[in-house]
Amino acid sequence: MAPGKAPILTPRVDDFPRWYQDVLNKAELADNGPVRGTMVIRPYAYALWERMVAEVDARIKAAGAENAYFPLFIPESYFQREAEHVEGFSPELAVVTVGGGKELEEPVVVRPTSETVIGEYMAKWVQSYRDLPLLLNQWANVVRWELRPRVFLRTSEFLWQEGHTAHATEEDARDYAEHILRTVYRDFMVEVLAIPVLVGAKIAQERFAGATNTLTCEAMMGDGKALQMGTSHELGQNFARAFDVTFLDEHGEQRTCWTTSWGVSTRMMGGLIMAHGDDDGLRVPPRLAATQVVVLVVRDDDGSVTDAAQRLVDDLAHGGVRARLDARVETGFGRRATEWELKGVPLRVELGPRDLAEGQAVVARRDDGTKSPVSVGDLVGRLPGLLDDVQRSLLAEATSRRDGATVLVDSVAAAAEAAAEGFAVVPWRLLDDAAIDELGRSAVTVRCLQTPDGDLPGDTPADELIAVCARSY
Amino acid sequence: MAPGKAPILTPRVDDFPRWYQDVLNKAELADNGPVRGTMVIRPYAYALWERMVAEVDARIKAAGAENAYFPLFIPESYFQREAEHVEGFSPELAVVTVGGGKELEEPVVVRPTSETVIGEYMAKWVQSYRDLPLLLNQWANVVRWELRPRVFLRTSEFLWQEGHTAHATEEDARDYAEHILRTVYRDFMVEVLAIPVLVGAKIAQERFAGATNTLTCEAMMGDGKALQMGTSHELGQNFARAFDVTFLDEHGEQRTCWTTSWGVSTRMMGGLIMAHGDDDGLRVPPRLAATQVVVLVVRDDDGSVTDAAQRLVDDLAHGGVRARLDARVETGFGRRATEWELKGVPLRVELGPRDLAEGQAVVARRDDGTKSPVSVGDLVGRLPGLLDDVQRSLLAEATSRRDGATVLVDSVAAAAEAAAEGFAVVPWRLLDDAAIDELGRSAVTVRCLQTPDGDLPGDTPADELIAVCARSY
Repeated sequence: MAPGKAPILTPRVDDFPRWYQDVLNKAELADNGPVRGTMVIRPYAYALWERMVAEVDARIKAAGAENAYFPLFIPESYFQREAEHVEGFSPELAVVTVGGGKELEEPVVVRPTSETVIGEYMAKWVQSYRDLPLLLNQWANVVRWELRPRVFLRTSEFLWQEGHTAHATEEDARDYAEHILRTVYRDFMVEVLAIPVLVGAKIAQERFAGATNTLTCEAMMGDGKALQMGTSHELGQNFARAFDVTFLDEHGEQRTCWTTSWGVSTRMMGGLIMAHGDDDGLRVPPRLAATQVVVLVVRDDDGSVTDAAQRLVDDLAHGGVRARLDARVETGFGRRATEWELKGVPLRVELGPRDLAEGQAVVARRDDGTKSPVSVGDLVGRLPGLLDDVQRSLLAEATSRRDGATVLVDSVAAAAEAAAEGFAVVPWRLLDDAAIDELGRSAVTVRCLQTPDGDLPGDTPADELIAVCARSY
Repeated sequence: MAPGKAPILTPRVDDFPRWYQDVLNKAELADNGPVRGTMVIRPYAYALWERMVAEVDARIKAAGAENAYFPLFIPESYFQREAEHVEGFSPELAVVTVGGGKELEEPVVVRPTSETVIGEYMAKWVQSYRDLPLLLNQWANVVRWELRPRVFLRTSEFLWQEGHTAHATEEDARDYAEHILRTVYRDFMVEVLAIPVLVGAKIAQERFAGATNTLTCEAMMGDGKALQMGTSHELGQNFARAFDVTFLDEHGEQRTCWTTSWGVSTRMMGGLIMAHGDDDGLRVPPRLAATQVVVLVVRDDDGSVTDAAQRLVDDLAHGGVRARLDARVETGFGRRATEWELKGVPLRVELGPRDLAEGQAVVARRDDGTKSPVSVGDLVGRLPGLLDDVQRSLLAEATSRRDGATVLVDSVAAAAEAAAEGFAVVPWRLLDDAAIDELGRSAVTVRCLQTPDGDLPGDTPADELIAVCARSY
C-alpha cells in the first residue's frame, strides 16, 4: 500500500480471513447466495474462471479426453452401490423429493460428483478392449451441503470439471491419473496461475471416498496454510465392479475395467486470491488475466486523450494483448486506479493530456507497485515483455515465500511447531496414527506424501517418503 | 440413401419421431438419463454444443453483456413475488427438501430460470443511472419437470444461456430485447446453423410467465412442424418491482428499472437434427461442425496411406479447417463411411493406396451425397470453398423447403388445413379467441406475429400484422 492511503482492505497480518472477505467484496468478485453456502460469481471473477476453463480444457483435450454431459439428478440407489462412496458423501447430499408438484417415488440426489452415473453409462458404452481407454470429462456444477461455507473455498454449490476414465489395466489407469495431475493440473497451476504447487499422494484417511489412491496438487497461501488445488484419483475396480464396467479382451475373455476420476473447481479462484493477493487487493498473473492491461485516461479536455488511449487499446489487442480502456473521466483518477489495483490487473497505463503532449505514458506494475515512464510509441512493443516479467516475478515471489516457510524437521513436535507458520516436511516413517492424531490437535494434517525430491510416490517404498504437513483450508 | 443399402434409420416419411430417436442412438448423440426426462449428451453431440456456445457467446459479448454465475438453488419464497411467474412455473419445479441429512427449514427450488435470484442481486448492484444498462448473461443448467420428455426438445434438465438486463427506460429495454433476437439469435441460427428462422412476437397466451412481450425465432423442421429456437422477453417492470430494482436518475429521483431476459438452449440441438437431417442421419453445417472434414484411410498395407492422410489433416488444420483422421483400417471402410454419414460430417475425403499412387482422393459431400475426385495437392486449397458451398446449400435447401410448405390463407379453416403440412400465414385480425381455439383442436397454434414483410411487429398496428400458424414441438 502506498504511504498515506487509507486502507481499503483489512491488512493481511491483522486478520487474513477478513482480508479475504474484503477482497471478494471490494474487488466485486463474489457475493454470498441467498441459500446458505451458495455463491454469486460476479462478472470480473467469472471472466477469470472462463480463462481458467479455457486453459484447463485445452490441456484436458490434449490429454485425449472428450467432453460430455451427464445429468444433475442421480437416483439415490446409485449411491448405495459403492460402500465407501455412500458413506463419504451421505452427510453432504442435497435431495429432491418433489418434482412437478408431486412427491417422487424415488428421491433423487443432486450430484455431488458423478462417478456413479457415469459408471452406469460406461458400462453401456464399453464392450470390447477396442473401446478402451474411454476418456471423458464434463464441466458442471455440483452440490455438497457445507456447514462452514466460505466463498470459492467451500461452497454448497461449486463449478468444476470432473474427468472419468476407464482402462483395461491398473497400470494404464495409474499412468493416466498421474498424467492428468502433471500435464493438466500442475502445468496449468505453475505456468498460468503462477502458483508453485507441490504434487504428492494423500494418506489413506484423506483419500476420495471410493478411491484406492488420491494424487493432489497442494499450494501455500499467503498466511502459510495449504490449499488443495486439484486431485486425481485411481478408483481401482471399485466403481467398475459396482456398475459392471467390463470388456472383452483380445482373447475373448470378460474382464473388469480400472477407472480414474479427477477434478479442479472454482476453489482455484480462492487459491488465486490467497496465493497472490496483497494488502491492495488481488494480483492476477498476466497469462490468466482476462484484462492484462488497463489504459487509464487520467483527464481529457477535448477527447484527444481518449482517442489516443482507444488507439493504444486497439493496437495492443491487435498484438495479442488483452487490453481494456478506462475513460470514465467523470470519476476521479485515484479512485479508478485503486479499483484496478483491487482487481489486480497486471499493468496499468496512465495517459493524461500532458503525457500525450510529451509522447509519454506512465506504466504501473501491479506486482511490485513500480511506475515508469514509457514513450507512447514504444508501448505496443514493450508491454508484452513486461507482462512476461510480471508473470515470472509472481511465480518467483510465491516460490520464495513457500520455500522460506517450509522447514525440514525430524520429529512430530517440531512438525507441529513449524506447521503453525507454513509447511513442515517430516519423514513419513515417523508418522504413525498416534502422531497424526497429535498433529491433528494443532489442526495440522498431512497434505501429501512425496519422494524426497518432491515427486509423486509411485513405487517408492513407504519408508523413503516424506510427508508435507500443514494447517489447511 | 444410396440404392441397395439396408436402412439404418427409420425413413422420415414412415415415422419422423422414430427417425429422430434413431438418429440420436445411431449417431451416438444422446441417451436418456436414469431419472425420467433427463439426458446424457455424448461427446460428438457435446462438441457441437460447445461450438454453439462459442458462437452464441461471442455474439452476446459483442452485444455488451458480461457473463456471471448465479446459484442453482433459489429460495421458494422468491417465486411467490411475481404472480404470473409463480403460476407459470409452479407445476414444473423440482424442490430440494433435504440437505446435509436434515429436513430444510425453507425448501429450495432448483432453478427453472433465474429472473428471481438475479433480480435480487440487480437490486443490490444498481444504485444510479450510471450503473445502467446492467447487461448480464449466464451459461447454466436449469430444471423443469417434464411429463412428456423428448431428448434435446423437452428435457427435465437442459443446458442454456439466460441473459438478464436492467435498463433505465422501457424503450431501451425493448431495443435491447430486439437487438439480442436479431444480432445474436437470428444471426447465429441463419449464418451458423443454416436454419432460416422467422422472427416475430408471441401472442399473449404464449408469452413467458411474467413477460409483457416475448419475441421468438421459429424454424420449420423436416416434417413441417415448427420449433421455437430461442426467445427474448421484455419483462416490463414486473420483476423490477417485485425485487425492488430501482435507481437514482440524473435528477436525483428514485425510479424503477425495466428488465429483459432471453435464452437459447440445448433444444437447438434438436432443431439442428430435425432441420437438416435426412434418411442417412445428421447433416451438420460446416460453420457449426466440430469436425468439418474427416479424412478416411480406405486401406493401408504399409502405413504410407495413413502417413499421407495425417499430413493432409495437419495441412488442413494449419489452413483453419477442423479436420480429423480416421485410420481405423481394421474396421471395414463401408461401415466407417456410414458412421460419418450418420454423424453428418460435411466433407469426407477417402484415400486408399491406389488413390495415393495416382495422387488423387475422393471427396464426398454429405449435403447432396455427390462424390468427386480431387488431386491430393489441390485438397487444401479446394476444401474451404467446398465447405462454403455445403453451408450455402444447406441453408438454401432449408429455405426452399420452408417456403414451399408455407401457404398464405385468408380463413381459419384454410389455416388449419395448411398447417397440417407446414406453416399457414393468416391475417392476425381473423384470429379471435374462438378461432384460436378452433386451430387448437387440430394442434395448431400461432407461432408468432409479424409485419407483412416478416419483421418484428414493433409499433405496427395489430390489424396489419400476420400470424404464422403451425403444429409444433
